[in-house]
Amino acid sequence: MGDTGEQTGSVRVDHEILARFVSEVLETYDVPSDHADLTADVLVAADLAGIDSHGVSRLFYYTHKLAKGLVEPRPAPRIVSEGAGGCVIDGDNGLGPVASQMAMDWCLAHAADGVGACATVRRSNHYGIAGYYARQAVQEGMIGISLTNATTFVVPTFGRKPMFGTNPIAVAVPAGEERPFILDMATSAAAVGKLQLAMGAGTEIPPGWAMDSDGVSTTDPVEGFNGGLLPLGSSRLLGSHKGYGLGVMVDIFCGLLSGANYGPELPGLVSEFEDVADVGHFFAVLRVDAFRPLAEFAATMDEMIRGLKSTPTEAGEDRVYVAGEPELEEEERRRQWGIPLEELVVGSLQQIAKSRGLVERFEQLLASGPGEGGSLP
Amino acid sequence: MGDTGEQTGSVRVDHEILARFVSEVLETYDVPSDHADLTADVLVAADLAGIDSHGVSRLFYYTHKLAKGLVEPRPAPRIVSEGAGGCVIDGDNGLGPVASQMAMDWCLAHAADGVGACATVRRSNHYGIAGYYARQAVQEGMIGISLTNATTFVVPTFGRKPMFGTNPIAVAVPAGEERPFILDMATSAAAVGKLQLAMGAGTEIPPGWAMDSDGVSTTDPVEGFNGGLLPLGSSRLLGSHKGYGLGVMVDIFCGLLSGANYGPELPGLVSEFEDVADVGHFFAVLRVDAFRPLAEFAATMDEMIRGLKSTPTEAGEDRVYVAGEPELEEEERRRQWGIPLEELVVGSLQQIAKSRGLVERFEQLLASGPGEGGSLP
Repeated sequence: MGDTGEQTGSVRVDHEILARFVSEVLETYDVPSDHADLTADVLVAADLAGIDSHGVSRLFYYTHKLAKGLVEPRPAPRIVSEGAGGCVIDGDNGLGPVASQMAMDWCLAHAADGVGACATVRRSNHYGIAGYYARQAVQEGMIGISLTNATTFVVPTFGRKPMFGTNPIAVAVPAGEERPFILDMATSAAAVGKLQLAMGAGTEIPPGWAMDSDGVSTTDPVEGFNGGLLPLGSSRLLGSHKGYGLGVMVDIFCGLLSGANYGPELPGLVSEFEDVADVGHFFAVLRVDAFRPLAEFAATMDEMIRGLKSTPTEAGEDRVYVAGEPELEEEERRRQWGIPLEELVVGSLQQIAKSRGLVERFEQLLASGPGEGGSLP
Repeated sequence: MGDTGEQTGSVRVDHEILARFVSEVLETYDVPSDHADLTADVLVAADLAGIDSHGVSRLFYYTHKLAKGLVEPRPAPRIVSEGAGGCVIDGDNGLGPVASQMAMDWCLAHAADGVGACATVRRSNHYGIAGYYARQAVQEGMIGISLTNATTFVVPTFGRKPMFGTNPIAVAVPAGEERPFILDMATSAAAVGKLQLAMGAGTEIPPGWAMDSDGVSTTDPVEGFNGGLLPLGSSRLLGSHKGYGLGVMVDIFCGLLSGANYGPELPGLVSEFEDVADVGHFFAVLRVDAFRPLAEFAATMDEMIRGLKSTPTEAGEDRVYVAGEPELEEEERRRQWGIPLEELVVGSLQQIAKSRGLVERFEQLLASGPGEGGSLP
């Protein structure tokens, strides 16, 4: 630990110090400190939840785009139009979390005018995990929804060319004593990150995740990367037209309703490092108490969640989970025991630290964890 | 044709005469003519779209429940509470389409107060195809959403007991010159109707649709019927936790938000013939022009739809479809060439006709098609 030579093996770091490091990196690109803090919080929230593919492993992508002038470090996002219960926000090509948080704040502030509120955002960028925003509604006793379109990488049913992104759907719902229900899912069978993980590890992927560039199902992650991901459902027989439909639906709410890029107008996996993205998002909140007393609803949520958790299990499994439960449990563990960073991520952060004059901060980061990496309790 | 003895083979009938027959059947159970006409329209809409499992093949289920007093023939559905942009409706245990249409009408009438409106319904019953209601928003230049919970029949990921229904999601979006985008999907890998079809035909089902009552994947439709359907995604590896999450999300919007039954509180596949259902629904409409000029949006929808339709195809396929396209094309064919009714459905309708003194009307129905059944042009 504290060795700034090439790092080998994984380490575990404190989440607050990790967030401070990320924020300081962003500030060296002229990002204002509040925007930098917010973006760091979004990235580290993914690492806390165990969604490592959307955490600080993406920082190099953010800094790359800032360095090339493809993302505006000091954007002036603005409300283009607003009415009762809805608004359109122009993100001014800033970091995705900036316009996204502005949109979610608008929704939460205007929810009391009716049963809820929604906002659509254009000219934005990668906004992190969808659930980060949806979850904020839960604290207010509301249902939160967060959608975004994304890098073109998913092939429609019967097609052989990517036509839209993994376009995630996040829906967060408050409960009472139980943890909230937090669904946060790509509408593809697998997330891009899982493919990248297999590429890094040199392992095969299961049939049903991807096709090669000739449109043939593949278990080779590199071929899949050059081809495209399959929609949730994987094949027509198992319902891939549903995952395909959900992906396009997200594109409609995010890209078409806002006037952002959509489908193959968005950069692909290679060109996303070279082009302005013009990503679109959609956010909504719904007041539970506009329909039913919150306490009554929350008690029923508890009852439903307990019922699901006590479902008899299939052979070989010992638990039935509720959406969000694995991530919230992981978050509790990682808040206490630190965030494990894989070798590749450590190397990527180290390189960024060196190039931005933050070697000392990086050393402090590496020394912040409770000990060497490894499996958590 | 016109032979009222036991029918063998399929026939083709005119959709308007079929709807009139269904309506007359319902009226014999003391259902008011406007409710009967609406319910007939909903059922025949499914047959027109080629979703035969949700069409008049279900009439025996409706009449059974009316006959047993499990559905109120003359309900007084009412708005329990309403506010800016949302309301709660009590269906008074009437036929599902009655409270559902009331809810959709409320949404359409109140959409102009803000960016849209939504309604949740409790104490309702089977409402037909979800898309029937969502689609009505399209004609008004709005996005329509329709959700319902349903008979308990889907097993959560890692579980081996059904805990919720096939809980469909319908989203309809207007386009310009192209047909609208109409997503109407069960959140299970396959619909119940597909399993029943395989049971009737004595054929196997593909792995990934169902598990037996011991929690083991099965290709036997009878074992699957006694076990349960798998969520969209089929296995954890291919994302069944996403289909599971979507199914529960629909239950939250329909059952928990409205105060209706939810999850295993709803009747199962056997008990649905014996119990009052207390089904819940959720409807929403969103005004496109609150976000973007409708003509501009519609032109972009056309562009997106044309792009998707011209996606290069995988080997063995000659077309990429857009959600709703197959059903809308089928509807055009069946409006012209009649609705094909399978032998079992003809027998079921004949039995109903005999018991309700409508044999003559049934004969007229059978004589209404352009000729013997068979594949359509």
